[in-house]
Amino acid sequence: MRTFSKAGIAGAGLIGGSIGIDLKKKRIARRVVAVGRHKGSLSIAKRKKAVDEGSRDPAVLEGCDLVILAAPVETIIKQAGLLKRHIPDDCIVMDVASTKETIVKKMSRIFPRFVGCHPLAGSEKRGIANARGGLFHKADCIITPVKATDAGALAAVKDLWVRLGAKPVIMDPSRHDRMLAYTSHLPHVMAFALIDALPAEYLARSPRSFRDMTRIAGSSPELWDDICMTNRANLGRSIGAFTGRMQAVRAAIRRGDKAALRRIMKRAHAKRSNIL
Amino acid sequence: MRTFSKAGIAGAGLIGGSIGIDLKKKRIARRVVAVGRHKGSLSIAKRKKAVDEGSRDPAVLEGCDLVILAAPVETIIKQAGLLKRHIPDDCIVMDVASTKETIVKKMSRIFPRFVGCHPLAGSEKRGIANARGGLFHKADCIITPVKATDAGALAAVKDLWVRLGAKPVIMDPSRHDRMLAYTSHLPHVMAFALIDALPAEYLARSPRSFRDMTRIAGSSPELWDDICMTNRANLGRSIGAFTGRMQAVRAAIRRGDKAALRRIMKRAHAKRSNIL
Repeated sequence: MRTFSKAGIAGAGLIGGSIGIDLKKKRIARRVVAVGRHKGSLSIAKRKKAVDEGSRDPAVLEGCDLVILAAPVETIIKQAGLLKRHIPDDCIVMDVASTKETIVKKMSRIFPRFVGCHPLAGSEKRGIANARGGLFHKADCIITPVKATDAGALAAVKDLWVRLGAKPVIMDPSRHDRMLAYTSHLPHVMAFALIDALPAEYLARSPRSFRDMTRIAGSSPELWDDICMTNRANLGRSIGAFTGRMQAVRAAIRRGDKAALRRIMKRAHAKRSNIL
Repeated sequence: MRTFSKAGIAGAGLIGGSIGIDLKKKRIARRVVAVGRHKGSLSIAKRKKAVDEGSRDPAVLEGCDLVILAAPVETIIKQAGLLKRHIPDDCIVMDVASTKETIVKKMSRIFPRFVGCHPLAGSEKRGIANARGGLFHKADCIITPVKATDAGALAAVKDLWVRLGAKPVIMDPSRHDRMLAYTSHLPHVMAFALIDALPAEYLARSPRSFRDMTRIAGSSPELWDDICMTNRANLGRSIGAFTGRMQAVRAAIRRGDKAALRRIMKRAHAKRSNIL
């Protein structure tokens, strides 16, 4: 069990802030700093004891032996070069973004000890205000090493997630992106599209099924267009597979083919109850 | 406040059973009986104090002054003629089915004092085993009178739902079916189609967003093909509107048009947060 002397968080939002709270509370790092764009968020982070110090100046990361990149994917990609100047080469750097292939490729070139991560513990309620200790308790955390990944850094990151309460799952970045295109990105797109398709007059009296189906449309558009755009090919395919099934259902309904409709529903019903 | 001398429930499942429990507990009916197909369900209903007597013989409904039709839509339609022989003409008859236009038209011809109802309090967990008192507490109950509806029966049914804790909402049957095609039937079809489209290997590690989006695929296929088939035209239109939005999202993703994608997501995000 390694104790880090100084951990840095780039982007103190829901995920970054929640990691900070646990790093301090569980004494995994002696000191925790954050770099962010918004002074307000940084001072909330300090008040919530997610960090000891917050700054808009990336120089705050000087001397870190652990850095967590916790901004949206494209922000990370844009800012990595700037951050790099303040991060020593032997520092372990990890991210927590929702897509992995692009970011792992790019960050591995920039940071010698980079490890890609994706804790499955997000929420439509983002921001430091919603950060809390224990967010990762019992959550899967997908870790996506590649050939170039430093073995020591990988072991330390795996150990770190275990101490944060998560269950590490090792997976290839491309498999991660194909899987999440179905299990996360497609459902989000569906939620946005469902709300968008609904005649406004019907919103007032929506049953629980509708509210559940659209909860994640409360997610941040700024975060999600990023996620979609960094997983375009996979997401296109999952949307295609899904709309294909919708068309099959629609065709069965149109021709009044109750047997065909029931077959689809029974298959889905059994699949869900068997495996989840 | 009227007390019924004998209330009869045709189909003692989640909804019928929950009504029975409250009718007895709140002393809205002096005696509650049920007619059903399954001996097992009827004896559970008796054990749960949802009914005083259960029988597979519809003659058990003789002498009722209130009858609740609580079977799936097409079962109700098939059995109404048979039940009619045992139900006096002055008996108030209501249903609780999820589509209203067809059933209101047919039942109004058979039962002089019929009132169509749809309490928005269902669950993917059906059956008498899940019935409970207070199920309708604070739930909207849509009541769908037509020109032919008996005014006294309508007033009594409205009062009954208030005593069951629900908020009665008066609505035209065709408006009900158009609305529910979007807010309930479409989401259910989406949930079934999403599970059906998912490569099975990905089911084991689904995040909460996915589990929420597919919870209602745990609903009964036998109930839902019925619902879909009795609301074909409206459901076809809502599926069409939704898949149209999905195609728009897919097109934006395919051409890498982040601005267009964000526009759709922002519009949906604002719509949900403003109105729900």
